[in-house]
Amino acid sequence: MGSTALDDLSERLGAAVLTDPEAIAPYARDTSRAAPEGEPIAVVLAASTEDVSAALAWASAQGVRVSVRGAGTGLAGGAVGYPGGLVISLAGMNQIITIDPANRLAEVEAGVITADLDRAAQEHGLFFPPDPASARISTVGGNIATNAGGLRCVAHGVTTDSVAGLEIVLADGRIMRTGGRTIKDVTGLDLTSLFTGSEGTLGVITRATVRLKPVPEGAPRTFRASFAKIEDAGAAVAAIVSGPAKPEVLELLDALSVEIIESFHPSGLPVGDAAILVGQTVGPRAEADAAAILEVCAAHGSVASEISETDTLLEARRLSNPALNARGLRVSCDVGVPIAALAEMFLGVEAVARDHGRRVSTVAHAGDGNLHCTVEAGESADEYAAAETVIDDITRLALSLHGTVTGEHGIGSVKRHELAWQLDQTAIDVQRAIKHALDPSGILTPDRGI
Amino acid sequence: MGSTALDDLSERLGAAVLTDPEAIAPYARDTSRAAPEGEPIAVVLAASTEDVSAALAWASAQGVRVSVRGAGTGLAGGAVGYPGGLVISLAGMNQIITIDPANRLAEVEAGVITADLDRAAQEHGLFFPPDPASARISTVGGNIATNAGGLRCVAHGVTTDSVAGLEIVLADGRIMRTGGRTIKDVTGLDLTSLFTGSEGTLGVITRATVRLKPVPEGAPRTFRASFAKIEDAGAAVAAIVSGPAKPEVLELLDALSVEIIESFHPSGLPVGDAAILVGQTVGPRAEADAAAILEVCAAHGSVASEISETDTLLEARRLSNPALNARGLRVSCDVGVPIAALAEMFLGVEAVARDHGRRVSTVAHAGDGNLHCTVEAGESADEYAAAETVIDDITRLALSLHGTVTGEHGIGSVKRHELAWQLDQTAIDVQRAIKHALDPSGILTPDRGI
Ligand SMILES: Cc1cc2nc3c(=O)[nH]c(=O)nc-3n(C[C@H](O)[C@H](O)[C@H](O)COP(=O)(O)OP(=O)(O)OC[C@H]3O[C@@H](n4cnc5c(N)ncnc54)[C@H](O)[C@@H]3O)c2cc1C
Ligand SMILES: Cc1cc2nc3c(=O)[nH]c(=O)nc-3n(C[C@H](O)[C@H](O)[C@H](O)COP(=O)(O)OP(=O)(O)OC[C@H]3O[C@@H](n4cnc5c(N)ncnc54)[C@H](O)[C@@H]3O)c2cc1C
Repeated sequence: MGSTALDDLSERLGAAVLTDPEAIAPYARDTSRAAPEGEPIAVVLAASTEDVSAALAWASAQGVRVSVRGAGTGLAGGAVGYPGGLVISLAGMNQIITIDPANRLAEVEAGVITADLDRAAQEHGLFFPPDPASARISTVGGNIATNAGGLRCVAHGVTTDSVAGLEIVLADGRIMRTGGRTIKDVTGLDLTSLFTGSEGTLGVITRATVRLKPVPEGAPRTFRASFAKIEDAGAAVAAIVSGPAKPEVLELLDALSVEIIESFHPSGLPVGDAAILVGQTVGPRAEADAAAILEVCAAHGSVASEISETDTLLEARRLSNPALNARGLRVSCDVGVPIAALAEMFLGVEAVARDHGRRVSTVAHAGDGNLHCTVEAGESADEYAAAETVIDDITRLALSLHGTVTGEHGIGSVKRHELAWQLDQTAIDVQRAIKHALDPSGILTPDRGI
Repeated sequence: MGSTALDDLSERLGAAVLTDPEAIAPYARDTSRAAPEGEPIAVVLAASTEDVSAALAWASAQGVRVSVRGAGTGLAGGAVGYPGGLVISLAGMNQIITIDPANRLAEVEAGVITADLDRAAQEHGLFFPPDPASARISTVGGNIATNAGGLRCVAHGVTTDSVAGLEIVLADGRIMRTGGRTIKDVTGLDLTSLFTGSEGTLGVITRATVRLKPVPEGAPRTFRASFAKIEDAGAAVAAIVSGPAKPEVLELLDALSVEIIESFHPSGLPVGDAAILVGQTVGPRAEADAAAILEVCAAHGSVASEISETDTLLEARRLSNPALNARGLRVSCDVGVPIAALAEMFLGVEAVARDHGRRVSTVAHAGDGNLHCTVEAGESADEYAAAETVIDDITRLALSLHGTVTGEHGIGSVKRHELAWQLDQTAIDVQRAIKHALDPSGILTPDRGI
């Protein structure tokens, strides 16, 4: 691609196009351990759907590979730049277009920061259910593109459950709308769900119509139960989610992660137990529900518990990523298991850690059976490779329990070799056939995700 | 297709193959007003996934069009036979393979009757959330293929929300698995959602892993509120769904449908009011929630109300289809509008009925904004055509309110001309490109659904 071609692109766009290597550099990586194989040649700071369309039409015509980027907080390498490629950044498209309280819908540009949307909804007594721990730094478009999970999924589902419709730009620049503003709609194929979680491989999300929920009445409660055996915590989780008192949040922290989080940012988490469950209940029955959940925990062997009106416990949980990284636990995974297999999974992870002689922490969206195990590793490539073999064993363990290689972070480039561990060849072929049908020249986030 | 080819098919299959025109006839139609353009040549009574695979491989090789059939209760013409085509019936694949109470999952063959699955789940204190009014006669596979709605969607979502994974046979006979047994899973594209609601166009669903929920504690309550103005009922619905007391069912019957249902099967529905809302609450707070909902109704002008411990009101609602048909209201639609547009929609439908000088009844899954308006029509083709023009106006009205042409019944053949009323051309092209990628010879439910 010559500079003439790039000039041509700049001319077509209302958007700024960065070409200075120093300006480009921050757009080449995401928050995963995937490194770019070379630097992209330009970044389009899209200001409109038309900008995205023009950039993609140009890239298709030129045969230039494109990576798509919200805030770059992704943990799977999906937004990493391609050598000689183009980056399309949605971060500048950050307008909340409308909030429609009567229908509990919002229309937003893809680059809106998740927490900003939530805050705007709160002004109408509503909230935006998806709340990845990265809510303050990730974009709604990125959440949709990864079908992000988070802390409240156990009550409100994952991002796809909050997406009513999308505006999408296809690889060749065509613009389309999916879904709409109704609660139910079976007109044609469910393209909205297909593009949700497609990790930038099928199209660029430029706008979304998302569903909001009414803020529950009354003050929330947070609760904590400590366990001397981690498998008891796992069994308690399975009992809680089948019981009548529904938590809005139900997280597990193992001994190592509690100790590290507490030393990173002391907030009164009790150290020394094998595992703690922390969670939240909401609504007029928040106190009674929290008490009922702690009774279930007690019946499953919890050794201590508390109910609180402050958010400290969950705030500590949200800080787990930086805390673990700061202590050399750097290589993490995102496996999931059926809820009844949690206890077995926790024990299995401990056994894998012992076998490898490496420390492994577990933080889990326990109510969803989704575990983030993080393996300690030195800064060298060898150390990372060794830690990867631990992740491999944990991942195969999850699969042996009918689990998944990724519960919420996505495949990206980091987990692409694991696709065939979980999916049969026909399912992979079908995904690639769909990809090829929508992006025949293969310019859009190629060789990732699927 | 010669009889040699058919013999060849019979030989390959463990399944029975019907070729006698009289035996085939019942498999040629569904419950919609779509008539077959000619008779199919054979019906495969599939007994296994391998049967379906062999039949599709044969049909692909022969270039024979295939219609897919569960119980044939569909209202969109999707399962109607093709002239000279093959019918694959899943009705014989009706085994519940496992119920896994700990993970609240069931694994079923596609031909299981919806109510049978629900009954089997109840033995474990669980239930299968999707409950189309046809639950006693439709199949789980048909529910998934249409992404069926029903009475409880306002609380539990539509069928797709209860599908964890699928076994699918593609048009060329390849077999694949999508999804799995976890709560969250973002491995690759969301094929499970793509095939849910695909109306037999992308593949044949042979098995499904579905999600069950715990039966709420305590006795349910049904409630009824009567309104002198139908628009008040619409406004009440919008207020109820945004309020703290959540109904499990929230249905609207207009004056005409109440009168007809009551005369068809007297069950104490009060006639004479412009509209009634009937619904159900569940759980330990069922009585209090029903009372709270009726208060919202009163605040929106309801003129009478009741709370009951029996199911009579909802049972009457479930009988609406046969009752309306028996009284000559035969041509119905399935439009949806955003919840806040319900009042305007109800008034608009009355105006359309007046303009055309034809009686139109409205029964609505009101809590979802999904209306079934049924137009009176004589038995002649002319009468049907005249009624269709009423449906057209109602459908365009729904679209003008940001609604949908089909909330739950699907496009099939009956609504295919309406696709372009709602979707932009690129969205239609994308759907057809996906269809073509998965079924390049176009044998599987061609020219329907998308
Ligand atoms: C501290 C921390 C905590 C986290 N906690 C969670 C958590 O609890 N749950 C969770 O699920 N994830 C979590 N994540 C991961 C990450 O925040 C999510 O994946 C988030 O959804 C990514 O949003 P983003 O805007 O940063 O997207 P990016 O990182 O920019 O991109 C992510 C992927 O989406 C694609 N993409 C982004 N925007 C678009 C678009 N508009 N159109 C098409 N494709 C697009 C990219 O190509 C890439 O493949 C966490 C990350 C961090 C750093
Ligand atoms: C009295 C009555 C009440 C109804 N109430 C409701 C209601 O409340 N909500 C609602 O949504 N619908 C309702 N319906 C419509 C209908 O029952 C649903 O669409 C139901 O899901 C169809 O199931 P079935 O097994 O009869 O499918 P069929 O009618 O046999 O087929 C429907 C469509 O699905 C496809 N299909 C069926 N099985 C498979 C399979 N295994 N793999 C791939 N494709 C397949 C067919 O090709 C066709 O396109 C009602 C119908 C009647 C007659």
